[in-house]
Amino acid sequence: MASKAKVSLALLLLSLLVLCASLAQAKDPELKICQNQCKRQKQQCERNCDEYIREKKERERQRGEGNGGVERESYDREEEREEQEEEEEEEEAEDNPFLFEDEDFESRVETDEGSVQVLQRFTKRSKLLRGIENYRVAILEADPLTFISPAHFDAELVLFVAKGRATITMVRDEERMSIVCDEDRKSFNLECGDVIRVPMGTPFYMINRDENEKLYVVKILQTISIPGHFEAFNGPGGEDPESFYTAFSREVLQATLKADGFQLDKLFHKQRKGSIMKASKEKIDALRQHKQGSAGIWPFGSFSSAHIYNLFNKQPSKSNQYGSLYEALPNDYKQLQDVDLSVAFANITRDSMVGPIYYSKATKISVIVEGEGYFEMACPHLSSSRSRGQRGGRESSRPRKSSTRYRKVSGALRPGVVFVTPASHPFVVIASRNSDLKVVCFEINAKGNIRYNLAGKGNVMNKLEKEAKELAFNLPAREVESIFNLQDGDLFFQGPKEREEEYGRAFE
Amino acid sequence: MASKAKVSLALLLLSLLVLCASLAQAKDPELKICQNQCKRQKQQCERNCDEYIREKKERERQRGEGNGGVERESYDREEEREEQEEEEEEEEAEDNPFLFEDEDFESRVETDEGSVQVLQRFTKRSKLLRGIENYRVAILEADPLTFISPAHFDAELVLFVAKGRATITMVRDEERMSIVCDEDRKSFNLECGDVIRVPMGTPFYMINRDENEKLYVVKILQTISIPGHFEAFNGPGGEDPESFYTAFSREVLQATLKADGFQLDKLFHKQRKGSIMKASKEKIDALRQHKQGSAGIWPFGSFSSAHIYNLFNKQPSKSNQYGSLYEALPNDYKQLQDVDLSVAFANITRDSMVGPIYYSKATKISVIVEGEGYFEMACPHLSSSRSRGQRGGRESSRPRKSSTRYRKVSGALRPGVVFVTPASHPFVVIASRNSDLKVVCFEINAKGNIRYNLAGKGNVMNKLEKEAKELAFNLPAREVESIFNLQDGDLFFQGPKEREEEYGRAFE
Amino acid sequence: MASKAKVSLALLLLSLLVLCASLAQAKDPELKICQNQCKRQKQQCERNCDEYIREKKERERQRGEGNGGVERESYDREEEREEQEEEEEEEEAEDNPFLFEDEDFESRVETDEGSVQVLQRFTKRSKLLRGIENYRVAILEADPLTFISPAHFDAELVLFVAKGRATITMVRDEERMSIVCDEDRKSFNLECGDVIRVPMGTPFYMINRDENEKLYVVKILQTISIPGHFEAFNGPGGEDPESFYTAFSREVLQATLKADGFQLDKLFHKQRKGSIMKASKEKIDALRQHKQGSAGIWPFGSFSSAHIYNLFNKQPSKSNQYGSLYEALPNDYKQLQDVDLSVAFANITRDSMVGPIYYSKATKISVIVEGEGYFEMACPHLSSSRSRGQRGGRESSRPRKSSTRYRKVSGALRPGVVFVTPASHPFVVIASRNSDLKVVCFEINAKGNIRYNLAGKGNVMNKLEKEAKELAFNLPAREVESIFNLQDGDLFFQGPKEREEEYGRAFE
Repeated sequence: MASKAKVSLALLLLSLLVLCASLAQAKDPELKICQNQCKRQKQQCERNCDEYIREKKERERQRGEGNGGVERESYDREEEREEQEEEEEEEEAEDNPFLFEDEDFESRVETDEGSVQVLQRFTKRSKLLRGIENYRVAILEADPLTFISPAHFDAELVLFVAKGRATITMVRDEERMSIVCDEDRKSFNLECGDVIRVPMGTPFYMINRDENEKLYVVKILQTISIPGHFEAFNGPGGEDPESFYTAFSREVLQATLKADGFQLDKLFHKQRKGSIMKASKEKIDALRQHKQGSAGIWPFGSFSSAHIYNLFNKQPSKSNQYGSLYEALPNDYKQLQDVDLSVAFANITRDSMVGPIYYSKATKISVIVEGEGYFEMACPHLSSSRSRGQRGGRESSRPRKSSTRYRKVSGALRPGVVFVTPASHPFVVIASRNSDLKVVCFEINAKGNIRYNLAGKGNVMNKLEKEAKELAFNLPAREVESIFNLQDGDLFFQGPKEREEEYGRAFE
Repeated sequence: MASKAKVSLALLLLSLLVLCASLAQAKDPELKICQNQCKRQKQQCERNCDEYIREKKERERQRGEGNGGVERESYDREEEREEQEEEEEEEEAEDNPFLFEDEDFESRVETDEGSVQVLQRFTKRSKLLRGIENYRVAILEADPLTFISPAHFDAELVLFVAKGRATITMVRDEERMSIVCDEDRKSFNLECGDVIRVPMGTPFYMINRDENEKLYVVKILQTISIPGHFEAFNGPGGEDPESFYTAFSREVLQATLKADGFQLDKLFHKQRKGSIMKASKEKIDALRQHKQGSAGIWPFGSFSSAHIYNLFNKQPSKSNQYGSLYEALPNDYKQLQDVDLSVAFANITRDSMVGPIYYSKATKISVIVEGEGYFEMACPHLSSSRSRGQRGGRESSRPRKSSTRYRKVSGALRPGVVFVTPASHPFVVIASRNSDLKVVCFEINAKGNIRYNLAGKGNVMNKLEKEAKELAFNLPAREVESIFNLQDGDLFFQGPKEREEEYGRAFE
Repeated sequence: MASKAKVSLALLLLSLLVLCASLAQAKDPELKICQNQCKRQKQQCERNCDEYIREKKERERQRGEGNGGVERESYDREEEREEQEEEEEEEEAEDNPFLFEDEDFESRVETDEGSVQVLQRFTKRSKLLRGIENYRVAILEADPLTFISPAHFDAELVLFVAKGRATITMVRDEERMSIVCDEDRKSFNLECGDVIRVPMGTPFYMINRDENEKLYVVKILQTISIPGHFEAFNGPGGEDPESFYTAFSREVLQATLKADGFQLDKLFHKQRKGSIMKASKEKIDALRQHKQGSAGIWPFGSFSSAHIYNLFNKQPSKSNQYGSLYEALPNDYKQLQDVDLSVAFANITRDSMVGPIYYSKATKISVIVEGEGYFEMACPHLSSSRSRGQRGGRESSRPRKSSTRYRKVSGALRPGVVFVTPASHPFVVIASRNSDLKVVCFEINAKGNIRYNLAGKGNVMNKLEKEAKELAFNLPAREVESIFNLQDGDLFFQGPKEREEEYGRAFE
């Protein structure tokens, strides 16, 4: 077959030669322009090939890498390649664009003492997630008695402490806000369940002040400046983390700090521990907040309302033997209003489930913190029925029924897994038989959002008028009611009996 | 083999490029056609290759699988194909990206008793419409004495009743809003001219309660979750409409409803009538709202202000023998503020016209409900002058005049046609000689929007200072004034005398 | 000759198909990728050829043009070509996507008396600027004693008078706002330093009322209707500027104005001077605002608060021997709140500098008005380190350090140059030794924005706790402090001593 190709190629070349010969003397300026265009195309193609080869080499180099002295690569080209990869990935994308696992995270920081893992952009996975493209999820882990180096982000940031005990310190420059403020640094001790917002651009640092327990913080970032992208800006630093000061030219840095070269070298080359490092007990003790309860008494500027909100300090919105739901709604915690976000925590008891429910307006990003289980969701956007309808519509004009179809989207859940349930999509989350399932949830477009129950107490079907039930189900109303009244639980229910098989079939 | 292939490929590319170049100058029209065919062939070849590879992969995947993997088609792939089609369509797109006709609608529901037609995404037509890409238009038609099955949408919805008499019932779960609400279902009788908003995610159903008249409802949807896309979520249902409940696995459904398989089968398999169905007079009578006037007395939560606004209950904003304009501005009807929308209804008397006017800030989507006519609009974005200016600017640096040019965009209007007039674009709408033209208008970005008259009473030109008129028109001011004072009507005028020819020339 | 070509073509097609088919099953993944890339290239080449032919046709058509039925070129096609060009430009884009020079402006108006230059769309340069894609920058220059013809724009407009003395007159039709308003035209005399907003769609005209000085106005436009695009709509006009009235068909125009053909010809064909034209001293005198101080007393509707704000009328936010900063924050000037914008003016003394600073939330667009100098900025998004991290993350799961790297972005500044400093990015701006550097700044996302100093008084590093300094710099705190205390200036500092070399090396 390959040899056939060669023969064809010979033929092709021959014909081309003839053709070229016959056309050779054309001097038409049109031709020249077109030729130029084509030349450019060719060059581009060659460049692409070159690039491919370079990439390959680089990959090889990385495999046996030492340091990083290559930084030729521009963001745009990077972006371009990313997009190519996106296309390819999207093509291969399995049936579930709503589930994210370990390989969908990128490691942004990785030191001996901890790490920061950032989830890929949602739109990199699927255009269905374009509504949340400005949001990113990250997970910070830090060993006991560690220091996370000062930095600011070019994105709004909301933290949820899932495990451990931290202290966060923010620096605010209120001067421009025309507010006199003695104290332009503020520390907050954080416990499990605490939600805190770090406004965009605010320098902050953290410690894990516990001697034994790891710190585990789930972050959601709302990107503004470059939609879908954010970066950390480390001020202090040296070789690792690098300080952004060192990006300025040396003479500018000297003028700016009135420092000589020797002083600059001392300042910006000592740090090699990375941005998460061990700290002595003494330093940790000095850095934690001693005046507990003072959080609320900083009444200046926009920062004044930046206090901690603990999800577990108030009653759960729902609780029974099958699970509990804790929520921080924008109405509860003003800081969340600006970023139009709710934060919630669900504890689903082993062998239990939550739902089916849907959120009227909010798209929910759920991060599994502990336990195992699975989720199921009904999605009309993934179903292929629409496409059939459309094509039919275009090709022929005769009417046809093409009502919406719902596809089951499902996935196995374990710690570190993230799943997205878009607004209005009904879903259930089911804990395994062996362990409680703990889920941190960020709800985007939280303002005016309502949770609708689809089973149990207060479910939507029971609220329809008798005649609507009859017409809609094509069944006597009392039969519909008798079935929808069987389940008398509220939100959290006993889990399915035979799911193990289903679960096994689908995900193992 | 790989290296050989690469060589062949390089050769192939080279020859192709040369060929392209040489063919570009060909003047023979036959050759050009052939060339086009060639291009298409190549593209098809490439697509075939792609498809072959994809198919192969898929086959392999399926072989190594086991379960029911029919719905392979991902949304993304669908989207991708759609985009390809879009490109093709855009290329063929006639000169008027602002006019939408029957073939631009997709039938989403089609039963014996009615239908729902959804207009394509605006950005599918043209990038010029990117400013309204989050909005979609749909038209519901239902026979007398019919029931439209309960569903919720993942989009904000505003309805306008253009013909007929309906009752709409919404279900709200206020529980999460911490508001005690006895009545979590609310019905509204709707008449012609009524505007009502259904907040995103709210389950609702409707009836056509008239015994004789068809119901005709124009809907505008503001998509949020997936920009430009929305779907209906049918809770009750069976085989048609499908219920989203049935997307869940059987064991989950059983646990959730505490129902056995027999009960589930009964509940979710009886309905086959589609989502618009005949209803008995008794049921219709039970479903309509009996307590007229109670609409306003539901004072709870965000839903409380969800009452009906009838365009015809207040004085028209403008009215004379040539036409009338009725408006619901965000200030009039609070529900419209959230979605930043105005709704208006214009009745243009036969042989009359409205405009020329422009809206300062709002882009207007007009749906023809009755009558015939045509519109004209001046559009600088469509004109090619900019492009010439740009290229000139790039190629040479010598100054040149390249002031804006305006292209006439026009189109014939008849019931069901939709046209868009972007913000700041001057336009006129002209009724035919034989029938009044009735237009429902949705105005996006309504907040702070102002209508500017370009002729007749209060027209902008008359408001310029004397000297400005002289300089701007390069004419004595009194001559400018004398012309702009000829028309003393206000907004609605006598139509053009000879337009029939123009109309005929342009659109028949 | 044509037949020869056809034969060759047939052969070619045949061989291509065979070749494609045979290559399709090649298993080498390298080949597949390369093949894909080449496919894309070919398609682009074909598109270019198409385009060339189309362009040629258009040129021919234009040459033999008579009436207005020619402008076939749709915006979409234009857009498409633009995007192709964008791709190409992006690839060639030097390392600095944040600097814009003369060739990045397009001339929209060019008459004997003045010009309007419009900066290209930001996203045309780089995806990094997507956060400001709705904003455009333009520069108006007009000779002494000139008139700028009435027009409205389909974008919000904020003007800053950088040089000269103008009068602006706006026309508002308040009628629809249900507000009785005697005076629906308002003039404002403008001086250097004045900021004024022209709401979207508002007709306005200007004069340069000075007898000697040129008028130099820097404009920022917030596009709404068509993101990233805006156009002028000239009502009065003739052949140049063209009036949008003339886009309507003749019979419509006659009916609309109740005018005959002779009158229309007179009205819309006299003007040939372009939209910036000489005006007599008498007319200029009549057009300027005589009632100085009346600006504030127009208390009607949304327009009422449209008064002038002069940056130089209040104390500078910062001032010392090295420079001064004047700011109009949204809190100062209500008109800026709607468009979420600050306007600022920095005068950097010769041989001095501003910064390093960063803005927490606002992306800053700076336009050089006078003087020379250069800027430096630290950018983590341009650095390639992320890409390595990502790929590493995907290919292998072993941990690696991949902390953020910052790239120096810099550029030479001279009048007319525009540069962008995204939110949270540290930067410095340095005046040359020979001239003060004057910069007009527009800050997007101004609400809640805070300026952080990175050197001198109140710098962020000094605000860290002692222990945080020690840990973060890995140096004794007193050493860190001693260096950060060397510079005791505030915001504006003495410039670097040796920068001339650096500057020369980098930019000459």
